[in-house]
Amino acid sequence: MVRDVRMRGFAERADVAEVDAFLADHVERLAAEEVALLECTGRVLAEGVSAQVDVPSFPRSAMDGYALRGEETFGASEYAPIAFELIGTALPGEAFEGDLGKNQAIRIMTGAPIPAGADAVVMAEVCSEPAGGQSVEVGEAVPPRKNVGAVGEDIRKGDAVLAAGRRIRPQDAGLLSSIGRPQVSCVARPRVRLVITGNELLPAGSAPSGVQIVDSNSVMLRGLVARDGGELLRFEILPDIPERIREAMADGEADVVLVSGGSSVGQEDHAPRLLGELGSLDFHGISMRPSSPTGVGRIGSRFVFLLPGNPVSCLAAYEFFAGPTIRRLGGRSPSWPHRRVKLPLARKIASAIGRTDYVRVAIEAERALPLATSGASILSSTVRAQGAVIVARGHEGMAEGEDVEILLYDEEPEILPENPERMEGTVRGSSNFGGQS
Amino acid sequence: MVRDVRMRGFAERADVAEVDAFLADHVERLAAEEVALLECTGRVLAEGVSAQVDVPSFPRSAMDGYALRGEETFGASEYAPIAFELIGTALPGEAFEGDLGKNQAIRIMTGAPIPAGADAVVMAEVCSEPAGGQSVEVGEAVPPRKNVGAVGEDIRKGDAVLAAGRRIRPQDAGLLSSIGRPQVSCVARPRVRLVITGNELLPAGSAPSGVQIVDSNSVMLRGLVARDGGELLRFEILPDIPERIREAMADGEADVVLVSGGSSVGQEDHAPRLLGELGSLDFHGISMRPSSPTGVGRIGSRFVFLLPGNPVSCLAAYEFFAGPTIRRLGGRSPSWPHRRVKLPLARKIASAIGRTDYVRVAIEAERALPLATSGASILSSTVRAQGAVIVARGHEGMAEGEDVEILLYDEEPEILPENPERMEGTVRGSSNFGGQS
Repeated sequence: MVRDVRMRGFAERADVAEVDAFLADHVERLAAEEVALLECTGRVLAEGVSAQVDVPSFPRSAMDGYALRGEETFGASEYAPIAFELIGTALPGEAFEGDLGKNQAIRIMTGAPIPAGADAVVMAEVCSEPAGGQSVEVGEAVPPRKNVGAVGEDIRKGDAVLAAGRRIRPQDAGLLSSIGRPQVSCVARPRVRLVITGNELLPAGSAPSGVQIVDSNSVMLRGLVARDGGELLRFEILPDIPERIREAMADGEADVVLVSGGSSVGQEDHAPRLLGELGSLDFHGISMRPSSPTGVGRIGSRFVFLLPGNPVSCLAAYEFFAGPTIRRLGGRSPSWPHRRVKLPLARKIASAIGRTDYVRVAIEAERALPLATSGASILSSTVRAQGAVIVARGHEGMAEGEDVEILLYDEEPEILPENPERMEGTVRGSSNFGGQS
Repeated sequence: MVRDVRMRGFAERADVAEVDAFLADHVERLAAEEVALLECTGRVLAEGVSAQVDVPSFPRSAMDGYALRGEETFGASEYAPIAFELIGTALPGEAFEGDLGKNQAIRIMTGAPIPAGADAVVMAEVCSEPAGGQSVEVGEAVPPRKNVGAVGEDIRKGDAVLAAGRRIRPQDAGLLSSIGRPQVSCVARPRVRLVITGNELLPAGSAPSGVQIVDSNSVMLRGLVARDGGELLRFEILPDIPERIREAMADGEADVVLVSGGSSVGQEDHAPRLLGELGSLDFHGISMRPSSPTGVGRIGSRFVFLLPGNPVSCLAAYEFFAGPTIRRLGGRSPSWPHRRVKLPLARKIASAIGRTDYVRVAIEAERALPLATSGASILSSTVRAQGAVIVARGHEGMAEGEDVEILLYDEEPEILPENPERMEGTVRGSSNFGGQS
């Protein structure tokens, strides 16, 4: 089976910085959508939120104790308590409906409404109730407003409580609930279409067989897209048939299309040509290692990334270009979301002026050890590595001992079960909030 | 409506460190469960994984080019190319089935299997095919094995690829796919029961009304539990009726029970007594601010946390005790998962020897500004704050100018839409991987 083949290299390669700048210029956050309160944590507010109510909306007790008129306690002390007539109880959600007269008090719980006629709360610990429960001996003088949460003390009606662009934290969602918001306007989640092509690919979950290998890129990309707040559209592996690839790339539902495989300049690399026909292939061939065959383009308002099929190249191309785009569309920071740590290099990294390198490093003995593998298909290197170091284009490399910033793959400090002492160490004492930065 | 009330303070308060140590001693990771490959990212491996196959399982081309016998290229150069007879093509997933004879070559694409008789690949860029496509002129000598990915080059059959305790990264899931794993054994997700009590509470999504306030703690806890990998069980707000609270706390499905409200020592604070009756109330009253009424106990193998109803106390008590427990049960690090930054204090923080403080701080002009509010119910302070500073029990406070570690509330660098330059600034140049640590 001999076919007509045309093979060529890339005419010229773009800088990573050029592609970055292009994306920064062209990617805008998506439109807003209403999101239910219980779904909004982690989403980005499209509009600022102002409170329509005061919180609290009634004066409430900040203590368990006795509500009374503060000035009537003046002169009270442990040794000279003042007696008040006890005429009732206020509980959270259950007001005392009466009006306090002279030298009257009620029992009150934290959060309960302060009754009419009262202006202060004396805490229970300094009071005593003689048998019978008809009165209370107050052993401390309190000024008016003591232990009373005033109307609007937490949030005042009309206050701007959360700004547009805010990524909603758990406590923000709590606050939105407390001001009675059933939903909020959030930036839509970018819809991402994965177009994985390759006649050699078996679906995830299969056993590799003969010359068929199992698709791993879609599995990895799925996790990265989820991390970046994207929503994955339906997915299937496509054969290397141009018409099928064209149809998938043209998917009108998607905000972002990630094409894995067939991105280079070889015989079966249909994706670049198809992208050029359907829209624009703005970049193809980028001066970086790995991932140099990466392509970036647009079809209408959709951003299309041609990711190399080799898993490490696919990972790096995603992190450099697709990830920032998905986060930016969703209103999040385009910055890489990784934790960072600065450590000296255990061994030099060779690079080349004009090229950006993505180097996997292991951390050993508090030093960053570049993993000696050039194979872009060596997925296991990203598994053995603790993170990546970026060598910017202006550098020929980095010297042994030089401090480098490592973008850590783990989202949080790791625990090795082989080393339980390390786990204990972060917990004993009052320092379980300790750990690596 | 006067009731019999008994009010008292806490007899003595435990140290945060004591509670930490107790939890470290008693909390063990949950049992394993099988998790499907596409669901496993972010989960924790309960067992190490070894490869049952070689990756690749056949020798494959690392380049687009021509497969041939390397020694037959010796002497070839740009000016003295050597001609090979072209007898076919190998594509990914489509082997060339024949055997290469003397001076024969085939076209080969990256990832395609190397045919029998070939041992090297010459890259397309240094070759040319004269019209007719019956032969190829090879302009470079390549040694045997050049541009060939050997069997097991990435992963060797029998290799331990991922250790038990590993939190699965996107690329780990990709690797699991490539070795043909349809599922993996992961630590079960802790099941968390929220028991929110309070007659004054309206469900999230309601408008506050009269002396009724809207439940915000369940909304906040929901986000925190999700962050920590817990799985929320069914949820409803319970009235302050002991029998209902007892039933909910005894929920046999849960690994962790979070009780919010009714945790103190007042009249309606049923939870501590019920916990003591159903199991053990191991701690009640902790030397910290806020959250001193927090309780910690167990019912069988379940961990029960009595979180104060005040939202900030609820947040702090969750972060100190419940969060680490949920993460530890799920096989994750008990360390607080926040990003950290060290900055000098803009104003002193007053604390007390023997007490642990959770202080909300804003970041202004590169300094940490403690938010001047003592109200534990001031949820808006955790919304205005950029993070929290912990003042350990051995300190009377922290001085102005002292460097403090801030546990940042945001999971990633924030973008303010009011300040688009800041967003651009992190992206222009080749530094969109830059940003705050």
